[in-house]
Amino acid sequence: MVGITQLMEDKVLMAFASYATIVLSKMMFMSTATSFYRLTRKVFVNPEDCASFGKGENAKKYLRVDDTVERVRRAHLNDLENIVPFLGIGLLYSLSGPDLSTAILHFRVFVGARIYHTIAYLLPLPQPNRALAFFVGYGVTISMAYRLLTSRLYL
Amino acid sequence: MVGITQLMEDKVLMAFASYATIVLSKMMFMSTATSFYRLTRKVFVNPEDCASFGKGENAKKYLRVDDTVERVRRAHLNDLENIVPFLGIGLLYSLSGPDLSTAILHFRVFVGARIYHTIAYLLPLPQPNRALAFFVGYGVTISMAYRLLTSRLYL
Amino acid sequence: MVGITQLMEDKVLMAFASYATIVLSKMMFMSTATSFYRLTRKVFVNPEDCASFGKGENAKKYLRVDDTVERVRRAHLNDLENIVPFLGIGLLYSLSGPDLSTAILHFRVFVGARIYHTIAYLLPLPQPNRALAFFVGYGVTISMAYRLLTSRLYL
Repeated sequence: MVGITQLMEDKVLMAFASYATIVLSKMMFMSTATSFYRLTRKVFVNPEDCASFGKGENAKKYLRVDDTVERVRRAHLNDLENIVPFLGIGLLYSLSGPDLSTAILHFRVFVGARIYHTIAYLLPLPQPNRALAFFVGYGVTISMAYRLLTSRLYL
Repeated sequence: MVGITQLMEDKVLMAFASYATIVLSKMMFMSTATSFYRLTRKVFVNPEDCASFGKGENAKKYLRVDDTVERVRRAHLNDLENIVPFLGIGLLYSLSGPDLSTAILHFRVFVGARIYHTIAYLLPLPQPNRALAFFVGYGVTISMAYRLLTSRLYL
Repeated sequence: MVGITQLMEDKVLMAFASYATIVLSKMMFMSTATSFYRLTRKVFVNPEDCASFGKGENAKKYLRVDDTVERVRRAHLNDLENIVPFLGIGLLYSLSGPDLSTAILHFRVFVGARIYHTIAYLLPLPQPNRALAFFVGYGVTISMAYRLLTSRLYL
């Protein structure tokens, strides 16, 4: 198993694995945040979810839309839209033999920007806090994509 | 091409590839389920999709929201939110040299939990069936993330 | 670092990296398209986003739903639902040692189908343009999944 063992000895890939795991765990936390707000505010979208709160007409009042829950869901979807390109492009970028310190700088800035984006979305902070966090993360991914396409293009 | 060939000789990676492909195919099935319900129930969201059913005002009646279609779409989005972390963390976990039987146990439980989650969402089964399926899958991903971060942390 | 270097010398993986980066960049473009339409049409979903356009009741009129913005968002979500399986299955397929020209054919058709899908969604083109683009991309992913499961199944 030389190939596999060597692979994870690579420092860039180890760093990518660490930062990707952190940012994915942060994204998974959004699911529990949604559940938390749904339960504490009693806001549900599926009839079976609020069956224990009452029957018939009594249960229907819990089937509603809540601003805070929708805000968490939008933050979650925005994470998904941005972390998926980071995962795909970041993994391939890590395999393309970049400079270690440059790669780590990319990963750190991305993870920091996404954590700040979540804070700015959920508090919420006034704009342009969230917009800036979004574009910093976006820029990091574009920078890795640019490096990949210029160094390893094979169409 | 020694590196590549060796890589897919690794049993953990082969197992990950098999389970990831199965769970992604299951997720892709949700797209066809949405199309099926949209067509059989004549529920559309884009005017061009129901143009063949009639013109002008006659077509507008098909542009509506349907409970069953929305249910399938929520199940699909929940899949996406949970399978993306599994893919990212699971791939890196597979490369980190885990014990084969432990790794396969993780993959099996995750795939089983997600299939059960879909069944519980679509039938629907009474709670806490769906919640339990969700948290089992969630726990598997967290367990792999924990192993990655404790064995290969490099920040 | 033999393992890593060898890995990206592999032509199939280089081709996958190029096409995956292109299709992910296209998906990221959807975020900027949404922002563009939100700003030019003054359609917002978060109160803090339109705070600069006015205060109190005056700002609330910008918190609305717009057909064009929703169309871009649906195209973006459809991208996410289809590009995630392509990334996961495509990467594992690339590692399974497929024939180079077959692999490149798969990647090219997928990327072409997704670009056509976006054009057909945003213009919009009459059906079945978008449906065909969707099913071509879907078929490519299923074809790679089939090859993976028949050649490397390990459960």
